[in-house]
Amino acid sequence: MRVLGIDPGYDRIGVAVLSGNGSAPVHMYSSCITTDKKLALTERLNTLAKELREVIAAQKPDCCAIESLYFTKNQKTAMGVAAARGAVMLVVAEAGLSVTEYTPPQVKVAVTGYGKSDKKDMAKMLWRLIPASKKANFDDEMDAVAVALTHLAHARTTYPQRKS
Amino acid sequence: MRVLGIDPGYDRIGVAVLSGNGSAPVHMYSSCITTDKKLALTERLNTLAKELREVIAAQKPDCCAIESLYFTKNQKTAMGVAAARGAVMLVVAEAGLSVTEYTPPQVKVAVTGYGKSDKKDMAKMLWRLIPASKKANFDDEMDAVAVALTHLAHARTTYPQRKS
Repeated sequence: MRVLGIDPGYDRIGVAVLSGNGSAPVHMYSSCITTDKKLALTERLNTLAKELREVIAAQKPDCCAIESLYFTKNQKTAMGVAAARGAVMLVVAEAGLSVTEYTPPQVKVAVTGYGKSDKKDMAKMLWRLIPASKKANFDDEMDAVAVALTHLAHARTTYPQRKS
Repeated sequence: MRVLGIDPGYDRIGVAVLSGNGSAPVHMYSSCITTDKKLALTERLNTLAKELREVIAAQKPDCCAIESLYFTKNQKTAMGVAAARGAVMLVVAEAGLSVTEYTPPQVKVAVTGYGKSDKKDMAKMLWRLIPASKKANFDDEMDAVAVALTHLAHARTTYPQRKS
């Protein structure tokens, strides 16, 4: 199974593809899509969609996992993130991929075994997966790798017939 | 000029196309796209995008106007609306249409001449534009017609060389 993990943000969208399963995940790809802040929202969504479609075409994931949106105090940012998320979900759905959402605590449990782990704990676990060439800029892509890994771990739990 | 006006909502998306200008607008098309509440958000965005693309292909608008998103007390609804809005803006941008946003007071001033007019005042003004066949279900599409009309009115102001 190849899972596309996406961390949608306002300015930066983390994208990762993992294969394998929850106990032996393999990092296939990760990147961070950034859009020009000076452009209008429509142009930014356009760029985002184009780049995301390219990743899907090249990496051929089987399904998609995305972190569920949490309420935030900064409503303006939240609206921007929600708009980017809407565009991302449309692109993914049109590519025929199912989308599973995971809450931040679910992602933390899947990655570190503990629902209140911090960014440092997460990085420590995820760092092992990442090829040396990717490590310099890993921070942006970490949440995307984490949610993809969460989906691999859940798939193994949900479908015990799958070889692991 | 043919303006596509869109009122993005969580369950219902009003769509309208007006032509002419601010003093002599002509109703070309309006409808309300609804999506099945039982479906996942991705499927709903998929349906929305498909139907919106059909309207754009059939009506061939030159540009698009959309009401800007206002903060609301119900954050869950706001997130759903923002996601639908992100998908709508992506579809419109990919169709090559420019998007202009108008605040609710701008729409009210353009339609009734008064920034605090209520739904009834708005309906009274817009009702005149609507062909008899559309009147029964007009309520859902009203905000889409209103924002399209706002764009026609502004275009006339902004480009005085345009014949009106």
